[in-house]
Order: sequence, then structure tokens, then C-alpha cells
Amino acid sequence: MGTIRREGLAAVARNPQRLYVQNVPMNLDAQWITGFVDGEGCFYVGVNPHREMTAGHQVLAEFTVVQHERDVKLLHALKAFFNCGVVRVNHGDRMAYRVRGKDHLLKYIVPFFVKHPLKSSKRLDFEKFRSILLMMEAGVHLTEQGVEEIRLIASQMNRGKLR
Amino acid sequence: MGTIRREGLAAVARNPQRLYVQNVPMNLDAQWITGFVDGEGCFYVGVNPHREMTAGHQVLAEFTVVQHERDVKLLHALKAFFNCGVVRVNHGDRMAYRVRGKDHLLKYIVPFFVKHPLKSSKRLDFEKFRSILLMMEAGVHLTEQGVEEIRLIASQMNRGKLR
Repeated sequence: MGTIRREGLAAVARNPQRLYVQNVPMNLDAQWITGFVDGEGCFYVGVNPHREMTAGHQVLAEFTVVQHERDVKLLHALKAFFNCGVVRVNHGDRMAYRVRGKDHLLKYIVPFFVKHPLKSSKRLDFEKFRSILLMMEAGVHLTEQGVEEIRLIASQMNRGKLR
Repeated sequence: MGTIRREGLAAVARNPQRLYVQNVPMNLDAQWITGFVDGEGCFYVGVNPHREMTAGHQVLAEFTVVQHERDVKLLHALKAFFNCGVVRVNHGDRMAYRVRGKDHLLKYIVPFFVKHPLKSSKRLDFEKFRSILLMMEAGVHLTEQGVEEIRLIASQMNRGKLR
């Protein structure tokens, strides 16, 4: 903590504007977030073999927004807005804001996009994403049949998009 | 026109929701547009040799938003919102909303993003884009020296981004 603070002050001495950029919270408008996520967001569900899980598989639901590191402040602003998730290196010079786990997704992410619907076809992915989370909330992913149902829905998400 | 109309009705008979999707205008919120353009928009200035121009070069300024064809309705909604530009095939299954020419850009596009500032580093591109358009408005691009000034500013735009 002390080290980070000192490094921060040194950086500010080199570039006084840096303090401003890092410390003033960026206020995000709900409609701006919807537009940005229509462009840059991804709702993803992965179903992977996992020997310790009851049904032999783990269902991983994830909301991510990836940006070049030059715009990492937008990712931190999203994290602050949604009050959950992490900002991490994605790969190379790309950073990702990522929210995993049904509890945070159902509490913070899903209600936002129900209230502020996406306008692009990404809304269809979001609706499948939400269905799967509600199935998980009901314990559907704990049976082999339930995992297959989820896998089928997940296979219809993010069609024609690179991940 | 008649053919298009008949094809449209046949498509609606096959899929009644299609009429709804195509004909109800999509209302875009200014903040949604700013967020979407922060993600998907591009402000571009090209300087190309052109023997018929006074200064031997043509300066082409262009605002574009590219989407998969599945979301072409968003591009038409942008066109309706800004009251200018065209929606065309970009390449393959990608469509582009495109506004060219300093008059439309200065009248419709620039004032919008002055009033509703971009939040990403794309704002820096927009500011260079705006400067070049104002230089063109003043006739700077009509001299060789002016073209060089514009080329220098344009070379600092869209750094590290694919086009």
C-alpha cells in the first residue's frame, strides 16, 4: 500500500495530470453504459468438465468488457458503477473488466440490463445469459440433464463473434 | 420499389416480427450514442494525392460506425438521428454508417460530440478530427503547406488501432 502510494506520487511528479486522471471518479450515465456494452461487452457462459462438481461439469458465467490499456479508467469506472467485479490484464496491452459468479451477476449486472435494455443483437445473448443464471439459481446446473440444457442454450450465444 | 415492397410482405408473412423490427423507428438516447461510438466509432482523416486539387492532395474526413449486418438497424437509427450520411456494405457481412464531407460533419456530427463528449481516448481523435475540419472550413487544405499541417495532425490519429 505504502509502495503503491509512493509510486503514485512519483508518477504525479513526472506528470501532474495523472493525479487528475486517476483520482476523479468518472460519472457514467446508464445510457452511456448500455451503448458502450452494446459495442464492447460480452456475456459468456462456459461449460467445462470438472471432476469435483456433482454433475461432472462446472458452469462459468461471465460478463466482460475489454479495452486497450489506454482506456483502463473506463473499466475502473464500470467496476465502481456496478460495485463488483475486477479489472485485470486480458492479454498483451488489453485490459478486461470482468464479473464472474451468479451471485454478483444476478445482484448487480442482470437487473441493470433488464432496466436499461441493450439495443443491439447482444440483447439476445444477454437474455440467454440471464436465463442460465436463473436456472443456476434454481440449482439446474447440479444435475447432468440440467448441464446439458445449459450447454444447449450457451451454444446459441455469441454466434459469429470472436472470443 | 414494387418488387421490394412485395419481397418485404413475403418476408413478413414468413416472419411477422420482421415488420416490427424494420418499421418502428428506434429512439436513440444521446448518451447511448456516445457510449456506442466510444466503443465502435471511428474518426478518420485521409490525405491522398489528387491531381485535380489545387494543392495536389485531397483531404477526406470521415466518421464511421461499423457493425455486423445483423445490427444494421442500429446504423439506420444513427443515420436517422444525425440526419445525414449513408449505410453501406463495409466488407463481407459488415455494414457501415458513414458520414463524409466537411459540411455534414461540421453541421451534424461535430456539434453532437462537442455537446456530449466521448469518455474514451477516442475523444482525442475526435478533437484532432474537429481541428482539421475547422482548418478545412478556413481553406487551409487548399495550400501545400496546409495539407502538410493536416497530414501531421492526421498521422497522430487512430494510433494503434486497426482500420
